[in-house]
Amino acid sequence: MASALVLRGFSPERARECARLFAEADLDGVYTHGLERFPRFVSYLEKGWVKAGAKPSLVASLGAWERWDGNLGPGNLNALESMDRAVALARVSGLGCVALSNTNHWMRAGQYGLRAADEGCIGLCWTNTIPNLPAWGSREALLGNNPLVIAVPREGGHVLLDMAMSQFSYGKLEAYAARGEVLPVEGGYDGEGKLTRVAASILASQRPLPIGYWKGSGLSLLLDLAATILSGGLSTGGVGKQEGEYGLSQVFLAFDLGRLGRVEGPTAIRDAVEEMAERIHRASLAEGFGAIHFPGEGRASIRAENLSKGIPVRAGLLEKLRSLASG
Amino acid sequence: MASALVLRGFSPERARECARLFAEADLDGVYTHGLERFPRFVSYLEKGWVKAGAKPSLVASLGAWERWDGNLGPGNLNALESMDRAVALARVSGLGCVALSNTNHWMRAGQYGLRAADEGCIGLCWTNTIPNLPAWGSREALLGNNPLVIAVPREGGHVLLDMAMSQFSYGKLEAYAARGEVLPVEGGYDGEGKLTRVAASILASQRPLPIGYWKGSGLSLLLDLAATILSGGLSTGGVGKQEGEYGLSQVFLAFDLGRLGRVEGPTAIRDAVEEMAERIHRASLAEGFGAIHFPGEGRASIRAENLSKGIPVRAGLLEKLRSLASG
Repeated sequence: MASALVLRGFSPERARECARLFAEADLDGVYTHGLERFPRFVSYLEKGWVKAGAKPSLVASLGAWERWDGNLGPGNLNALESMDRAVALARVSGLGCVALSNTNHWMRAGQYGLRAADEGCIGLCWTNTIPNLPAWGSREALLGNNPLVIAVPREGGHVLLDMAMSQFSYGKLEAYAARGEVLPVEGGYDGEGKLTRVAASILASQRPLPIGYWKGSGLSLLLDLAATILSGGLSTGGVGKQEGEYGLSQVFLAFDLGRLGRVEGPTAIRDAVEEMAERIHRASLAEGFGAIHFPGEGRASIRAENLSKGIPVRAGLLEKLRSLASG
Repeated sequence: MASALVLRGFSPERARECARLFAEADLDGVYTHGLERFPRFVSYLEKGWVKAGAKPSLVASLGAWERWDGNLGPGNLNALESMDRAVALARVSGLGCVALSNTNHWMRAGQYGLRAADEGCIGLCWTNTIPNLPAWGSREALLGNNPLVIAVPREGGHVLLDMAMSQFSYGKLEAYAARGEVLPVEGGYDGEGKLTRVAASILASQRPLPIGYWKGSGLSLLLDLAATILSGGLSTGGVGKQEGEYGLSQVFLAFDLGRLGRVEGPTAIRDAVEEMAERIHRASLAEGFGAIHFPGEGRASIRAENLSKGIPVRAGLLEKLRSLASG
């Protein structure tokens, strides 16, 4: 992947970092947002929607909140740099915020929360997207699925929430349809406007459900509006007027937990996190469940397995990646 | 209500402000969290779970993020003061955060977002609660419904998201059960562990659903964990070990949009908000819908109607409130 990026105008150093972010998504088991996305990312580079050499530039310093312009640079590099900047602001002010306009799809959302947590911060970030989700009460895809991330540092594996506002992604719906399986819960509307668990019907109607029906619809809308206003960038509606998904708006927040060393014992944060983990692990199970995990808990074991056995990559994709590296 | 509070140790000024917050919930049509809650609030005062004269005190200044102790003061006064303090921090640093421990139920969540929006800020706040929601995969109420608020200033009525992490509150379930109506969507589990729209079955099983199943379960968990760590207060699990719902943890964030006057035209924020409103209003409607509104849009007309015709209050409640005011 790094070679493919160098061929398309990346410096060797940025190519390596960008490729690492793609590979780490697969390493952690997030196969939908790693290598599988790379061919599309390369096509966006070739269309000029992603600018290989562009980096974020400061637009306005508003205190602990800054506005940056992503200059249509690679979305994952832009996002990582923005969270790093939010962490730097948090080192000065306790918390920091970078609102980033004119950026690109950040691929695996959780990565930027994990980065903040690696730095001993609570990280919170979200992005808008192209319109891909009907608002509650409408047939039309007015909203983005606008992934939201919250990460809390934990020894042995951070707590990580990484969730889009749609109940099932289009990728998930396609996988269920291909296997001919019904969804575990209702995931959208069929052609007659009825809620259904049949993925193929939802793909045909293009009407997936937001989480919690009216609630996820409202949350998606407010995340988009806040990202738009804080960054001064495009809304989901504005992105939808373009020929493709580029020029997104994102928000990165970090709280520097290192400051708490002055005001509480050194184990206070660990105690709070472990109390949560124990509470989840002790819980009585519902029908059909063998265990309950907190968000992000599975990551460490998947990573360990992939590190020892290698990352599974389907043969066709591997060939495709090799072909991109040879021009 | 103010008289009832003065009888129970409030200063006249604080009694008036606390009563105003209860009444304004009804004025805006949020009847579940206004006058109807007042008798329970008084009983908490009498039990000593809410301390009439207590005010928040600063625990630690960490920059633009501060920790405050609510000292078990009245939840609505504590929350309003905390959002005001977050706004004051945002005036200095662009954004500000107050993390409040040891406080009480804030009643109507939206009020504190509206307060930030009145001050020209984007407001974001959330609270934990007693355990009242099973985690995904468990039968047990491990999680709180942890209401989350995001407010964006708008002339003619702020945009306001005010949502709990449960698909339906216990109050809603009780209302559906009393009317013998089925829920519009699945709201929890019946006695056999099957998803159901029958409110009475969910009330019997005490297993309501989080929004988006596993997603709302994760979001509730992370909101609780973040509130606990940022404030140094009790988690939902910790609150659940007490004899009642008191000593909650809350987070208040404000972004001062007034700072943007230096960097963009005076209509930029209004344009972003109105573009969102138009997009929603123009949308093609789904089956059974006559109109779509953005979150908080209905508030202005309900308020206007209640201001002109008076706030509807059921006779029994009015009598109850009068009896509380006479000791």
